[in-house]
Amino acid sequence: MKKKRTKKRTQHYKKHTGQIPGTLVYTGEKSHKNVKIESFDYTKDSISETILTNIEDAKSFKETDSVTWINIDGLSSIGEIENIGLQYDLHPLVLEDIVNTTQRPKIDEYDDYLFVVLKMLYYDKDENIVIEQVSLVLGKNYVLSFQESEGDVFDTIRERIRIGNGRIRGLKSDYLLYALIDAVVDNYFSIIETLGNKIEDLETDLFEGHSRDNINIEVQQLKREILKVRRAIFPLREIINRIEKGEHPLIYKRTITYYRDIYDHLIQVSENIDIYREMIWSLMDMYMTTISNKMNEVMKVLTIMSTIFIPLTFLAGIYGMNFEYIPELKYRYGYFVLLGVMFLMFLGLLYYFKRRKWL
Amino acid sequence: MKKKRTKKRTQHYKKHTGQIPGTLVYTGEKSHKNVKIESFDYTKDSISETILTNIEDAKSFKETDSVTWINIDGLSSIGEIENIGLQYDLHPLVLEDIVNTTQRPKIDEYDDYLFVVLKMLYYDKDENIVIEQVSLVLGKNYVLSFQESEGDVFDTIRERIRIGNGRIRGLKSDYLLYALIDAVVDNYFSIIETLGNKIEDLETDLFEGHSRDNINIEVQQLKREILKVRRAIFPLREIINRIEKGEHPLIYKRTITYYRDIYDHLIQVSENIDIYREMIWSLMDMYMTTISNKMNEVMKVLTIMSTIFIPLTFLAGIYGMNFEYIPELKYRYGYFVLLGVMFLMFLGLLYYFKRRKWL
Amino acid sequence: MKKKRTKKRTQHYKKHTGQIPGTLVYTGEKSHKNVKIESFDYTKDSISETILTNIEDAKSFKETDSVTWINIDGLSSIGEIENIGLQYDLHPLVLEDIVNTTQRPKIDEYDDYLFVVLKMLYYDKDENIVIEQVSLVLGKNYVLSFQESEGDVFDTIRERIRIGNGRIRGLKSDYLLYALIDAVVDNYFSIIETLGNKIEDLETDLFEGHSRDNINIEVQQLKREILKVRRAIFPLREIINRIEKGEHPLIYKRTITYYRDIYDHLIQVSENIDIYREMIWSLMDMYMTTISNKMNEVMKVLTIMSTIFIPLTFLAGIYGMNFEYIPELKYRYGYFVLLGVMFLMFLGLLYYFKRRKWL
Amino acid sequence: MKKKRTKKRTQHYKKHTGQIPGTLVYTGEKSHKNVKIESFDYTKDSISETILTNIEDAKSFKETDSVTWINIDGLSSIGEIENIGLQYDLHPLVLEDIVNTTQRPKIDEYDDYLFVVLKMLYYDKDENIVIEQVSLVLGKNYVLSFQESEGDVFDTIRERIRIGNGRIRGLKSDYLLYALIDAVVDNYFSIIETLGNKIEDLETDLFEGHSRDNINIEVQQLKREILKVRRAIFPLREIINRIEKGEHPLIYKRTITYYRDIYDHLIQVSENIDIYREMIWSLMDMYMTTISNKMNEVMKVLTIMSTIFIPLTFLAGIYGMNFEYIPELKYRYGYFVLLGVMFLMFLGLLYYFKRRKWL
Amino acid sequence: MKKKRTKKRTQHYKKHTGQIPGTLVYTGEKSHKNVKIESFDYTKDSISETILTNIEDAKSFKETDSVTWINIDGLSSIGEIENIGLQYDLHPLVLEDIVNTTQRPKIDEYDDYLFVVLKMLYYDKDENIVIEQVSLVLGKNYVLSFQESEGDVFDTIRERIRIGNGRIRGLKSDYLLYALIDAVVDNYFSIIETLGNKIEDLETDLFEGHSRDNINIEVQQLKREILKVRRAIFPLREIINRIEKGEHPLIYKRTITYYRDIYDHLIQVSENIDIYREMIWSLMDMYMTTISNKMNEVMKVLTIMSTIFIPLTFLAGIYGMNFEYIPELKYRYGYFVLLGVMFLMFLGLLYYFKRRKWL
Repeated sequence: MKKKRTKKRTQHYKKHTGQIPGTLVYTGEKSHKNVKIESFDYTKDSISETILTNIEDAKSFKETDSVTWINIDGLSSIGEIENIGLQYDLHPLVLEDIVNTTQRPKIDEYDDYLFVVLKMLYYDKDENIVIEQVSLVLGKNYVLSFQESEGDVFDTIRERIRIGNGRIRGLKSDYLLYALIDAVVDNYFSIIETLGNKIEDLETDLFEGHSRDNINIEVQQLKREILKVRRAIFPLREIINRIEKGEHPLIYKRTITYYRDIYDHLIQVSENIDIYREMIWSLMDMYMTTISNKMNEVMKVLTIMSTIFIPLTFLAGIYGMNFEYIPELKYRYGYFVLLGVMFLMFLGLLYYFKRRKWL
Repeated sequence: MKKKRTKKRTQHYKKHTGQIPGTLVYTGEKSHKNVKIESFDYTKDSISETILTNIEDAKSFKETDSVTWINIDGLSSIGEIENIGLQYDLHPLVLEDIVNTTQRPKIDEYDDYLFVVLKMLYYDKDENIVIEQVSLVLGKNYVLSFQESEGDVFDTIRERIRIGNGRIRGLKSDYLLYALIDAVVDNYFSIIETLGNKIEDLETDLFEGHSRDNINIEVQQLKREILKVRRAIFPLREIINRIEKGEHPLIYKRTITYYRDIYDHLIQVSENIDIYREMIWSLMDMYMTTISNKMNEVMKVLTIMSTIFIPLTFLAGIYGMNFEYIPELKYRYGYFVLLGVMFLMFLGLLYYFKRRKWL
Repeated sequence: MKKKRTKKRTQHYKKHTGQIPGTLVYTGEKSHKNVKIESFDYTKDSISETILTNIEDAKSFKETDSVTWINIDGLSSIGEIENIGLQYDLHPLVLEDIVNTTQRPKIDEYDDYLFVVLKMLYYDKDENIVIEQVSLVLGKNYVLSFQESEGDVFDTIRERIRIGNGRIRGLKSDYLLYALIDAVVDNYFSIIETLGNKIEDLETDLFEGHSRDNINIEVQQLKREILKVRRAIFPLREIINRIEKGEHPLIYKRTITYYRDIYDHLIQVSENIDIYREMIWSLMDMYMTTISNKMNEVMKVLTIMSTIFIPLTFLAGIYGMNFEYIPELKYRYGYFVLLGVMFLMFLGLLYYFKRRKWL
Repeated sequence: MKKKRTKKRTQHYKKHTGQIPGTLVYTGEKSHKNVKIESFDYTKDSISETILTNIEDAKSFKETDSVTWINIDGLSSIGEIENIGLQYDLHPLVLEDIVNTTQRPKIDEYDDYLFVVLKMLYYDKDENIVIEQVSLVLGKNYVLSFQESEGDVFDTIRERIRIGNGRIRGLKSDYLLYALIDAVVDNYFSIIETLGNKIEDLETDLFEGHSRDNINIEVQQLKREILKVRRAIFPLREIINRIEKGEHPLIYKRTITYYRDIYDHLIQVSENIDIYREMIWSLMDMYMTTISNKMNEVMKVLTIMSTIFIPLTFLAGIYGMNFEYIPELKYRYGYFVLLGVMFLMFLGLLYYFKRRKWL
Repeated sequence: MKKKRTKKRTQHYKKHTGQIPGTLVYTGEKSHKNVKIESFDYTKDSISETILTNIEDAKSFKETDSVTWINIDGLSSIGEIENIGLQYDLHPLVLEDIVNTTQRPKIDEYDDYLFVVLKMLYYDKDENIVIEQVSLVLGKNYVLSFQESEGDVFDTIRERIRIGNGRIRGLKSDYLLYALIDAVVDNYFSIIETLGNKIEDLETDLFEGHSRDNINIEVQQLKREILKVRRAIFPLREIINRIEKGEHPLIYKRTITYYRDIYDHLIQVSENIDIYREMIWSLMDMYMTTISNKMNEVMKVLTIMSTIFIPLTFLAGIYGMNFEYIPELKYRYGYFVLLGVMFLMFLGLLYYFKRRKWL
């Protein structure tokens, strides 16, 4: 499995090297899935929801005053992406970033649109963390969203648009962008919750002395998971901060408060991640101390046994010698006296260990 | 108990995920307590104190020139909170933050009011730290305070308002806000005092060699307690700093000095927390050194005993052999000569250990 | 002694909690000493030096053009301090900070005066560090200085004012403030010198292998001493930096250079403290390595002895068995052959240890 | 080999000390290679590619409106470099920096040109990292590039200029500079990929317990490699950041987006490097834990064996003594009873170890 | 030697405490050397070089348009220094800083001159690092340089002034200042080269297992050397940075480029120092791992020997007992059977250790 992961990464970077900038290469893993394009076009009063088979169909929405949300699931079809880029007049580098899923979360401001890359995190069924790239383009009256695969994270937003009695239908595309980002960020809370549970399980195991052998490896994997999550989440704070500062004309003052709310959530998530980070280092320390303590215990048992029996054995050895003349051997009660002496030595050593608090 | 804590947290986050922003969900634990609303309305010369059964009764205070303080204990009744929000024209996100007790301390500036979230800390009777959220809204001539449960931390302020010969009655609502924050911050000093005592007890135990087994766990718990306290207190500094900079029209220049005083206190508290943090890491180091030293002692005892008696036992073994022809066995004083030799070896080894400073 | 310290701190904080801001409570330990007020009033040409019994007597100085320095030793008499506050029109929080000796060094700028809190450090006769608070108030033509107890650190300044041929008599109160701060900062150099000597002594002891048992505790105490000193000195840099930036009207451009000089000294002191900090961590590491090395030595002795004698003892045991038919026992030279074999084994093992560089 | 490296570095610095600033000394290692100068001169429609034998031949390109790229491979011929400097009116310090290959990546802005130093990294055939300096000079309509040796990293750019249907031919010299830097940065991805593989191999070895002896040294070398790479790459971020800020008149607004793209790549590379850094520290920790665990295992085996057999041996010794009167020796079943007792002791000790979880 | 160093430092600080600011006290160690004053006065076309016996002789140079460089070697003669101060109208604190050689590198800007303090480093013949203070005063058409002792670091500059075909003669005093600082900074390269060699030697020793006993002390000394060098060099970066920003009227725009060059060198030096710092920490870690590994080896030998021979010895002990009825003793081949059994046990244990990879 490890080998496979290495090879995968290798591939990513290979494609990078020596290419003409602006060349579109999908670097994700879900290449064989179909592209699915769905569009929502709504005003306060009306809504039309369509599954598009062809991106050109979306053209008509661009001119109207209504807010249009076009969601593209699947990035492997380069042609479609290029087509969208043409329709919405996106910079070639934007398109390259959309399909290159090794991007770091970032925000790029263009004259008439805003380009945001962020990461969606979830645990797959094997409890491995999966990171998917979500790219968002905010235009004057539209939002484009690009996902690697069809997810359910935006379902609540679909629902809210359909129902139409909430804030979302009455506000502009910048609020829609907020809603999409908020949906992704809300999802981070369940990630850190799972992380927290994993750390607590590890901790309980450690306190109760279970599973010594692979604790090292588990800690290593948890550390890496935290590293990954940090890397996916932390740059987002800066992005929201820049949106919140409110200098881009596409973001209205009215929605800034909402972006500030996301920012608060992100700070909360980041703090939790850093606490987990600290906890896991702390766990490692505790584990080392536990090992040292155990070795100490082992040493003590060895020392006590050896220290008690080695001199006694020596005494027995003395009277096992075959010298012709050993007067004690002739004494009537020699044997019993010696046994008594040995017992006293035994008690003395016990007392000595007691006093040193080894027993 | 650990399991329970995990589950509780899970619940918090679950509610977060996929909700419409601005939805009010109380995330604290004191859900079944009644909401209690009390109001103080005072000028320099007059004061009226009421327990309100209905928030609408507070309406009349809003228009007057007098300063009104409305204190709400208990956040579980979403309806009441929404009602207050309506009365005082608060943003939905403010209401959401008031009832969501997992908030980080923060300040949000709105056009005609200031919203401050902070954390009250105290130790419960089992010496566990309890963190409660206190939300404060400062308007032109009113302050709203929201607490999770009825506490006594604001009692001194109630008293000062009633007595009325102090500064508080003569000044505006911004001084009242200061007084409330100051009461919470003053309380932090007793928290860090308890923390300090715990660390000193641990240190004394460590120096005197007590309770080896669970010192690891105690240190771990103290570390976590410090983490929690840091997290609750540190963001407050930034908040007070922002108030102190004095750009919000609701904060008069006259009261800035008082906010600066809170800031100084917070710096003092923070410094102490960081000192405790450093001390506890240092303690852990010291503990590791102590373990190493003890193991060294154990090793030495083992080594001394083994090194002395193993060669002697070998000698005894030699003369315990049954060869038919071992000339020494026939010597008249063989036994005594050997005993002498053994005693000399014993002394020699003792001297060797003495010289190596092992004895 | 430890218990006592804990209790003392408890007291400090208790007084804090739940008090009306601006209440004067002396938190230091020198409560029973008398307050001593001395005043210097000087111009370039004249000087008058008085011991005041009553602070009202100082009133006359306030109006004149001459520079007045009023030095108050002893803070326990709250009444006197309040009186001075009234005379010089000081803010209640300033008075509270003067008598609350747990203050952090800080500077507060008021409209017509500047309030500076700093810490004087010295070693008492038991080599324990003592931290006393010095509060300074700089007005247009006066400086007030408040000390916890009568010290001799300002004696050189008294002398320079009396002699009157130096710079001090010709310049304004801002130079006097500088001179007072400079006197305190100069004193820090002897503190870090003592600290440096302590660390070097510890280092020498460690290199020479002395006093193993309490080195742990000594290091711990030194660490704490450094922490204390850092905490007392480091905030002062920021204070001087703010004065040096020269925006307060009471500080003339001419004296800025002198404040810059203090700043340089403080940087030097801070650097030394941080070097000591690093050195003491390094010492601890070195100590751990020393312990590990020693354990290694102990292990080697044990291993060499055991490894040599255990197989020899086994051989002796073999020929000490009572089987009726052991042919070797009958051989004429069996015993000597065995002794020879044993000797060869002994040599072989010695050679083996030699080759492994254990001997 | 180590010795050689040391000597090399010594040489570098020696040349530095006491020289007149602006003296040209080539400090690299490829002194005996020939200098090769190639030039590209292109507009949107035309292109001329030449290998120059003499730098004066390039003079004609300078005046034209077309973009000229002059690539110089080999820096040992000081005369040629000085000649170019004269032709293009470069500052003596620029020339000194071009040939002094110990430069740190940097950007220097001059009135009519921009001077950029960066580092090209590749692994040689012995898997050692090689760092070569690339200096770039951007003028109004030309770019000069200086390489230590002939490399293939710019080949794709040559190709793109020749083909001419891409962006490069239509844009100015600032885009060419971008393309050159981009080619170098793209190459970093393969470096960090190799680094990543090395770390993963080490990790696998460590988990599987291979090659204990030199893991220490390998880790040390990897750490150093990462240090080197960091040092070569990290300053470049700041450089690109400064270009991106776009204040230099030679960088057109249109190409800023492209520089921002490089910046994103560099952040990605830097993040990976820091992750590797953290991973390698973590590996070291894990290795230490593994050693401790192993020692613990060794200790346990020793303790179990000793603790079981030492008391049994003592018992056997008792009945090997030659006292004339030892009643048990006469008993008919004494021997078998003793064997039984020994067996019970053996079982008892096994049970004891089982309960302590040592078995 | 250690004691002496302590005493020396004590002395320095003593002089500090309680002195009137601006009092000149030489704190260096070269008190008995003579002061030597040499002057260079040059324009593009003319040059006059003199050894002055009296500083008043330098007076004439001050008025002229030519650039004057006055170099003072030896600082013990307070009178001379004060005299120069008078001649060139220097602030008393500047003079105090010139003779107080414990200064930290710094820059002070005065109205008509610039005062720079920096540190010259070299290794004396015992390979100990020596730090000397160099103070530079830049005036409109003069530079004063103060050195503790006569050094050769400025010789190349003397030569360049004499030869007069370089840049130096044609430019102003600000270029001379640059040349002097550059000479000092160039010298740092040889310092870090020596440091680098020391670390590599230590590393080689460590890898090859030499000199175990004092490696601890050597590492400690190297760490301290690096600390010293850091402290002497790092503040200089900030100084040059401030000069480079070019706001002082005495620094012409034309020479800024040269100061930027020094800055680059300083960054290079600083980076190397920090790399050495990291390497030495890393070495210490590696050393600890080596110790642990060795202890592990020792443990294994002990365990293998004990585990093999202890049960065998027990068996021999069994048949050495003197019970009257031990049936095995009567068997004809009892002895040989037992030897066989022992041999099989021996093989079994060997196999067991082989499988655990201990052999």
